[in-house]
Amino acid sequence: MTRPVFAQWLSDTNDVTQTFLSAGQIPDLINMAGGLPEPSVWPVEELASLSAEVIRRHTSEALAYSPIEGLAALRDAVAARFSTGGLALTRDNVLITTAGMQGLDLVGKVLLEEGGLIAAQTPAYLGALDAWRPRRPRYRLMRLEADDFDPATALQGAQFAYTVPNFSNPTGRLVGVEERSALVAAADATGTWLLEDDPYGALYYDAAPLPRLLTLSGVGQSGPYDGPVVYLGTLSKELAPGLRIGWVIAAPALIRSLITAKQGSDMCTSGLCQMIAAKAFERGLTEQILPRILDTYRSRRDALCDAMQTHLSEHLDWQKPSGGMFVWATAKNPRLDTDRLLVQSLRHGVCVSPSSVFDPLGRDRRSIRINFTLNPADRLEEGARRLAAAIRATLEEKAAA
Amino acid sequence: MTRPVFAQWLSDTNDVTQTFLSAGQIPDLINMAGGLPEPSVWPVEELASLSAEVIRRHTSEALAYSPIEGLAALRDAVAARFSTGGLALTRDNVLITTAGMQGLDLVGKVLLEEGGLIAAQTPAYLGALDAWRPRRPRYRLMRLEADDFDPATALQGAQFAYTVPNFSNPTGRLVGVEERSALVAAADATGTWLLEDDPYGALYYDAAPLPRLLTLSGVGQSGPYDGPVVYLGTLSKELAPGLRIGWVIAAPALIRSLITAKQGSDMCTSGLCQMIAAKAFERGLTEQILPRILDTYRSRRDALCDAMQTHLSEHLDWQKPSGGMFVWATAKNPRLDTDRLLVQSLRHGVCVSPSSVFDPLGRDRRSIRINFTLNPADRLEEGARRLAAAIRATLEEKAAA
Repeated sequence: MTRPVFAQWLSDTNDVTQTFLSAGQIPDLINMAGGLPEPSVWPVEELASLSAEVIRRHTSEALAYSPIEGLAALRDAVAARFSTGGLALTRDNVLITTAGMQGLDLVGKVLLEEGGLIAAQTPAYLGALDAWRPRRPRYRLMRLEADDFDPATALQGAQFAYTVPNFSNPTGRLVGVEERSALVAAADATGTWLLEDDPYGALYYDAAPLPRLLTLSGVGQSGPYDGPVVYLGTLSKELAPGLRIGWVIAAPALIRSLITAKQGSDMCTSGLCQMIAAKAFERGLTEQILPRILDTYRSRRDALCDAMQTHLSEHLDWQKPSGGMFVWATAKNPRLDTDRLLVQSLRHGVCVSPSSVFDPLGRDRRSIRINFTLNPADRLEEGARRLAAAIRATLEEKAAA
Repeated sequence: MTRPVFAQWLSDTNDVTQTFLSAGQIPDLINMAGGLPEPSVWPVEELASLSAEVIRRHTSEALAYSPIEGLAALRDAVAARFSTGGLALTRDNVLITTAGMQGLDLVGKVLLEEGGLIAAQTPAYLGALDAWRPRRPRYRLMRLEADDFDPATALQGAQFAYTVPNFSNPTGRLVGVEERSALVAAADATGTWLLEDDPYGALYYDAAPLPRLLTLSGVGQSGPYDGPVVYLGTLSKELAPGLRIGWVIAAPALIRSLITAKQGSDMCTSGLCQMIAAKAFERGLTEQILPRILDTYRSRRDALCDAMQTHLSEHLDWQKPSGGMFVWATAKNPRLDTDRLLVQSLRHGVCVSPSSVFDPLGRDRRSIRINFTLNPADRLEEGARRLAAAIRATLEEKAAA
């Protein structure tokens, strides 16, 4: 007897993730595909002590069910960290999530009906597309860098607009402060929610951080924040992804609906991990380790870009990013299909992400995303060398076909 | 400018959870509403040591991103725990979830289209109704205890059937072994998926555990399990809810789709919590603490039922449950509206759960669910006394209206 079929949206998923997972079996593979952090930056001893301490001294918070919305201590810490002169946040503006990905899922549950319209900065983060796929949304593509981009036209009538202003995943692009102000103004004018996904907000390597959309949106408001920006943050890049701690900052009414959605999603986030995060904030652990993270990632970015200049400038165009985890590179030869390149690159012992997975419509096959945070300089150099060989093989394969 | 409205399903939610949350502010309230464990049974020192140990010695597993499907060590441990003579499980049958609630959410994402049909044991767990509400399902109510209940008719054409065979939430009812076999046979005959939600499977106070639906379904199969049962387990009742560790055991094809859904829900469950769980299983920590849990909860169940006999037998009918966390009691007087009783009980300093929240159609106002695991005997006695006063007040209020 055949059992009832799975929901339709599952057939819309791409199989690139499976390709990546099977890549884990390839010996000596240089993985430049994911967005993984360098493990040596983790404060292992501090986290080990903290975890034992919070279980012994804050047993109830660590081991019991947490409030759905998160522990008050952690919500308060997040509200304090993101409040500025012009932006007043209270714990009612904050929901603790099971890392950043859950924030995306909950926003989809709360704001999307089946087939709802999202205005998305394009190319867009693969994980956001994954999170919203069960609602089978429609996408309006926003190319913020285009000369004729008009934020108000782009946002009009969408349920929400999705952006990664700080070193966009996948392009590494930094959205400028005028563009940020224009997006916030458009959100105010059109009444569309404006989702600011900010996993890389601390990873500025060359300059001081630009103001967040959330900060710009709060200027001049009186009382706790009640504007259109829905800000998503995470500890995955600033402390450790294994804690699965993230947060949403938004207007209290939206936070209340997100709490209802979280209740039916995982009831609450681990109290143990929340208490570790609260204590890590309290003791300044993230600030302590940030300089080492920035030094490590800055030098790896430079190493990758130097190696690309040596091995890949014949084939690819790119801009050196001023932060984040990725270089976005586009093929000079329009005949280079980067989905095919992925297959060839695995044969050559290197793995990068093809642009098709970041296109809400699944079409773009001209670019790749290359991660520089996980591998040391010599492996990045070797990875660039292998990638060049894989590009040549892909083009020869194409010519032979 | 008004911003786009929230998704319609949010208006279908009940506000009882909010009532419970606000109840937390009432001084000296006796909370018999939730399903909370007794904190003194937690092995605090062992968990504190384990957490520090896994961060130091299994740093990568604890602090990095986990595989979406969970750490291999924990999946293997779960497969081994639930394999029996007749049931062969491998890690391909197991998905690690962010506690049991996420299993319910993922099953809904994978098996339900908008408006899909669920055959649900009724009354049903509130959290399951919450988890599936975003898909706005239709419900076919299954009253397993009814004389004319026919499993094959009940399951025919449903996407899945939902049951809590061990001490059902909310009724505390133990589904008998013949009923279990009939459900499994009906699932085989109709091809409907059969969801076995089992948070209380270890909490048998008076007799040896009955075979799981999963076990019955696996008998006589050759090779790894590939049948209709989708089993949901959790560490929340056997170790500590703050770890947020649960699992789904099912046919490999369904597990693969659940992995896709989990990828877009929270990417992975905390590696730290997963490693603590894996080590706790390896060292037999759950078996070590189970006798104390059973002794504590058995004596509290007896204390509550004795107190109910003294204070509530005039107003309520109930059966002493042989396990789980709850007594389900039904008003003798059909004029007693238990939604109203909730309001009155809060005024009298006690909190129980009204039956309306466990009815997929939201109509049943004749019963209440009373928890006995959180409070010691003297508080349970005082709670029963206060509840009797609240019932009298509710009936007087009704008479006056």
